[in-house]
Amino acid sequence: MSNFEVIKQDKISSARIGRLITEQGVVQTPCFMPVATNGTVKALSSEELKEIGVEIIIANAYHLSQRPGVKIIQEAGGLHRFMNWDGVLATDSGGFQIFSLENVKIKDDRAIFHSLEDGREQSLTPEESIRIQERLGANLLMTLDYCPRRWDDQKEISRSTEVTIRWAKQCRQVEISPRKWLFAIIQGGISLECRSECTRALTQLDFDGYAIGGLSLGEPFCETLRVVRLVTQQIPWKKPRYFMGLGYPWQILAMVSSGVDIFDCALPTHIARNGSAITSQGKINIKAGRYRSQFQPLDPNCECFVCRRYTRAYLRHLFNRKEILGLRLVSYHNLYLMQRFMERIRQAISSGNFTEFSQQAKKEYNNRLSPKTND
Amino acid sequence: MSNFEVIKQDKISSARIGRLITEQGVVQTPCFMPVATNGTVKALSSEELKEIGVEIIIANAYHLSQRPGVKIIQEAGGLHRFMNWDGVLATDSGGFQIFSLENVKIKDDRAIFHSLEDGREQSLTPEESIRIQERLGANLLMTLDYCPRRWDDQKEISRSTEVTIRWAKQCRQVEISPRKWLFAIIQGGISLECRSECTRALTQLDFDGYAIGGLSLGEPFCETLRVVRLVTQQIPWKKPRYFMGLGYPWQILAMVSSGVDIFDCALPTHIARNGSAITSQGKINIKAGRYRSQFQPLDPNCECFVCRRYTRAYLRHLFNRKEILGLRLVSYHNLYLMQRFMERIRQAISSGNFTEFSQQAKKEYNNRLSPKTND
Repeated sequence: MSNFEVIKQDKISSARIGRLITEQGVVQTPCFMPVATNGTVKALSSEELKEIGVEIIIANAYHLSQRPGVKIIQEAGGLHRFMNWDGVLATDSGGFQIFSLENVKIKDDRAIFHSLEDGREQSLTPEESIRIQERLGANLLMTLDYCPRRWDDQKEISRSTEVTIRWAKQCRQVEISPRKWLFAIIQGGISLECRSECTRALTQLDFDGYAIGGLSLGEPFCETLRVVRLVTQQIPWKKPRYFMGLGYPWQILAMVSSGVDIFDCALPTHIARNGSAITSQGKINIKAGRYRSQFQPLDPNCECFVCRRYTRAYLRHLFNRKEILGLRLVSYHNLYLMQRFMERIRQAISSGNFTEFSQQAKKEYNNRLSPKTND
Repeated sequence: MSNFEVIKQDKISSARIGRLITEQGVVQTPCFMPVATNGTVKALSSEELKEIGVEIIIANAYHLSQRPGVKIIQEAGGLHRFMNWDGVLATDSGGFQIFSLENVKIKDDRAIFHSLEDGREQSLTPEESIRIQERLGANLLMTLDYCPRRWDDQKEISRSTEVTIRWAKQCRQVEISPRKWLFAIIQGGISLECRSECTRALTQLDFDGYAIGGLSLGEPFCETLRVVRLVTQQIPWKKPRYFMGLGYPWQILAMVSSGVDIFDCALPTHIARNGSAITSQGKINIKAGRYRSQFQPLDPNCECFVCRRYTRAYLRHLFNRKEILGLRLVSYHNLYLMQRFMERIRQAISSGNFTEFSQQAKKEYNNRLSPKTND
């Protein structure tokens, strides 16, 4: 029996704190899910994720079904045991990944595509996607959606909305354990009409939660926000809302303020492998020459083991020599920082000063973090 | 004041247990030093090395002097602080690395070579090498030696013996803190005459310890053993003996049996990055298809955290997907296994059953470990 408790709502914004009570444990929201596409959060161990305080991660059912295959993971006793993760586990259906392949064909009841592994033609129905996720042992499952490739192709967006609704219905009819969460993914690009239509149709199907997909694809951030504000108003208040694929702290603040509860993003570990650290003073790239002899931590305000024990100069040296330890340590720091950031958000909402916190935090983790944005 | 205590000698072989008492702590011998060429044991953190029980590591003064440079490491407070390592730290002078460069010229008092970084001509005198190592903060320093490129070029070997002796004298004259250990490197290829000459000359200079260099370069293992047996008999009994660049457990057993106290080798972490694990049942490469659905640990007899928590199937999957966690975990296991292996050697010598242990262990970590060998 899925159970989401909204514990407190902010008086000024739509921000709220909640608890997602799952068969595998409780997740406090707003939360950030590190991405474990292949059943591993890149460069980090499951032990480190626990140490950092991560309560939930998200793996990718499509990728895992390709390699090592569902059968092996089932034989291992499920993905939790396979990857030695005892926290809550979400899986994405893989719609986003399938639609990024070449030559995807959309039939009414399935997607047809060519395997990246061996080029063979494969197909995936919404029902199969759910069954795969259940066999993997996920606690939180996602419907198969049609994620348009571009945010500004209205024709594809209309079609993706229509298909996404139809597939969500197919997913809804699959019988899964009532102890698992099934989230529907809302598509519709930046068209408020499509988003409304999709949200209305999916909420009528009464899913356990709702994800907002197909954003963060390059559209202006003000459009992203407009869509999220519309959608979160239409999703029943008691249902958790999940924004797929975000992001930087200042972006998360804007979304929390609009009532989003759950986030995921490969960004903190992705940029870490390139030497970029998220800090309370903005983003820094540790490979830059100016860090050569800076003997302070990556982030002087951070208490992670990396910041307590290693200097910028050492981290720069490791990157300079292409030493794996460098990207390990920065990945750890970035995820630690994201977890502490979400904690701070929850505390601020809890103590009724989210707006002040938000203004302050935007200054700290400031826009240098994402120079491309126009918000 | 360098101080090496031989605690017990085996009755049958020349194996012995000892304690290397340094300014930075005590090292129990026989010991294996993980290699931290660039100031990091590849893929592992200093915290993990401590957890594994590593007491001493060896970094490379030449590489570190190139990047990040001695100045930065000094500013950081020395290499211990730079890399957050509070155990004992040895540095190799870098002779081996310099002689693997193209166009090295050997003058009587220095080596001249081209920087790998920018191609500039550089030179290094034996005195400079020692001063660099002292500035890095090493506890155990190595003389600059001339390491021949080939084991079977007698002309080069004669010259390398002569130069190595001359340079060792130059190193000996550098004043360093009496609390630091200075080891001389013995060269001479597989020529017993050259080895004898070199050992005699270097022991007359009364170094704190002696390293046997220029072996494990492809020569037959029976020749390696012959040289080591000769040399260890000529080195004063009270001085520690260090074999540079070995190796697999069964090779180490043979050397311990000949009276060697210290080993180092990049092999356990090097092969790990390629998926090879050293186990008590021989070497396995986890990338092989047969491990696809083996849900037992890498080594059923190992108690490291990797073997306690992760399966072969998961590790294979990580390598198959080129996930960094895979090589991290196998690197950890291999070094853990080497440390436990050295512990078992020390226990066996201590309890007077080294010969039995050695026979048993050769079977366990058997010759599949190194199919090339002809010993």
